[in-house]
Amino acid sequence: MDATLSGEAVRAGPAAREQFHDARGYGRPVGGDLELAPVEAAHLLYRGDLAGVDGAGFRAFLASTAVSETDFLVYKDLRDRGFYLSPARADWPGVTHDVAGDPAVDFVVYPRGSGPWDGDVAYRVGVVGEREAVPAGDLGGVVLAVVDEESEITYLETARPDPTGTSGVALPEDADGDLLSDRVVLWDPPARLYDRGFYGQRLDDQGGDALQLSLVEAAHLARQGVLDVDGGAGAVLDRGRAVEGDQFDRRLRVYAALRERGVVPKTGFKFGADFRTYADVASVEDLGHSELLVRVLGADHVFSPRDLALDVRLAHGVRKTMVFALVADAGGEQGGSDGVTWLSVERLTP
Amino acid sequence: MDATLSGEAVRAGPAAREQFHDARGYGRPVGGDLELAPVEAAHLLYRGDLAGVDGAGFRAFLASTAVSETDFLVYKDLRDRGFYLSPARADWPGVTHDVAGDPAVDFVVYPRGSGPWDGDVAYRVGVVGEREAVPAGDLGGVVLAVVDEESEITYLETARPDPTGTSGVALPEDADGDLLSDRVVLWDPPARLYDRGFYGQRLDDQGGDALQLSLVEAAHLARQGVLDVDGGAGAVLDRGRAVEGDQFDRRLRVYAALRERGVVPKTGFKFGADFRTYADVASVEDLGHSELLVRVLGADHVFSPRDLALDVRLAHGVRKTMVFALVADAGGEQGGSDGVTWLSVERLTP
Repeated sequence: MDATLSGEAVRAGPAAREQFHDARGYGRPVGGDLELAPVEAAHLLYRGDLAGVDGAGFRAFLASTAVSETDFLVYKDLRDRGFYLSPARADWPGVTHDVAGDPAVDFVVYPRGSGPWDGDVAYRVGVVGEREAVPAGDLGGVVLAVVDEESEITYLETARPDPTGTSGVALPEDADGDLLSDRVVLWDPPARLYDRGFYGQRLDDQGGDALQLSLVEAAHLARQGVLDVDGGAGAVLDRGRAVEGDQFDRRLRVYAALRERGVVPKTGFKFGADFRTYADVASVEDLGHSELLVRVLGADHVFSPRDLALDVRLAHGVRKTMVFALVADAGGEQGGSDGVTWLSVERLTP
Repeated sequence: MDATLSGEAVRAGPAAREQFHDARGYGRPVGGDLELAPVEAAHLLYRGDLAGVDGAGFRAFLASTAVSETDFLVYKDLRDRGFYLSPARADWPGVTHDVAGDPAVDFVVYPRGSGPWDGDVAYRVGVVGEREAVPAGDLGGVVLAVVDEESEITYLETARPDPTGTSGVALPEDADGDLLSDRVVLWDPPARLYDRGFYGQRLDDQGGDALQLSLVEAAHLARQGVLDVDGGAGAVLDRGRAVEGDQFDRRLRVYAALRERGVVPKTGFKFGADFRTYADVASVEDLGHSELLVRVLGADHVFSPRDLALDVRLAHGVRKTMVFALVADAGGEQGGSDGVTWLSVERLTP
């Protein structure tokens, strides 16, 4: 059976419609004929179900510009896994208005056992090569299918979570602290600051009262009136900006937003992240497992898929969820009321 | 007992020499007196062994510019772990000429039970804050003690390994391949290319001969005369540079150096690295665990400690060793005969 390429569509006759669409979910009916996306035609060529497109076999069709090799590899992989799927094009069956025309979505994947005629969607998939740039703003409702240079595929599910917790403690005001070059030391802090609030780290595990705060913790507590240092919160902010630049403001915003949500952020340094977080801290004595790793980025951040893979793999290995906190510029309108958009990314096996 | 600060040294009398140096490895004898580095004096103040330096107690001394807070935290931690250590200053006992004056080394740590008078060295330690820049060229013979913003310390041992293996296979010449936009497909490859050489990845796991090569694999094989594509090795190189820039040349150099050493590199994408490597591939059927994760960098790369922590933590979690392949510029003289310097970084618990 042969087909013809016309613009971005491959056309075949009524027999193809019956055999490929009605029975196996390829393409869409147009009149009595079948219209296939080039990637669908490539798959039918690959399987030997279609003899040629304008006389070209699979090898010639794949080497042409009509079809993207990464699209083909992902399409084939999802078919191999037992899914029917359609290209995310307007007016295709199963493709709703929220994905048609969304440049981040390439395929609409139906639940196993379903097809374009059922109206259910399992995944909205965006295909990228490992060297392509992925704007953070495109993510949140799409499964990223990353094709690496050796043609293996990694699926990354992206979502927009809403981190919340039950942590919180009433603190006394005006504890004295010394601002050092990259931390603040409280020589005689209120005990509950650490024991209940999980602020800071003791200078000496074996005893002694002195408590060290990071500059982010100190800036937050100084703004709340809990910490008193020479120069006030402004001095801590200045120091933070001196050692870290604008990123200090973004990290402080995310730190404050998490505390506001009842979630305790602590350093994520050992995991290469900004923060690890604890949703339910009643007492440091009785600390659970930290749930999230948080990396703070500007809202206009553009990911490299490999950096994403690194973060997500590490988080998975330590049984945490990777969350990116996207912070809008001070003047911007993006994000929630706290100016932060939360983006989770997890490995998916479709 | 009191001491006085003079320049970068703290001086105390003969009683201090006996009590702190002879019995516990602090400072160095100068005449009958004791000379202490400020960080040692800070530790003695912290312990209450010294009453003051020019009248200043621990709190005032730590807040002064005389002593670095990160140096103090690492010094204290190593003392807490049962080590004696000296500042890496010329003419101090136990400090040999190869570390004195090396800006990457701050402390010489003696084996447990030994001190400055024994002549053995367990670790040469460099102290950095998590936000400091660490030039790759400084690493290889030093333990990096990274103090994070919450004052926790991560020790990273750096070395210059010499990766070798026993992999290697004789291959026939001139297999035909099609150059696609980011890979090469061989429709009828010699079987041993994949089965014995572990080059490429089959297009279809379930059967069929077609083999996909990454551009790096293809460029290497084209240079060796094993692969024949339209335009030859030059066309593959051009495509690689088009999708990846100069980094393609660096990665190809590292790929070729590893193959030359009997080590098989495969993509490290799932681990966020350039390559994972197998030292002893006899057959793909009988593949062992991959041993190294390799990240390819320019020889003048400057690390952020947090990126290092991320890579090293991930590698540790998957039971591999993180190795950085530092590639000198084409005209440069750095690195081994292949222009590559190998740098391993692993977590250490002193």
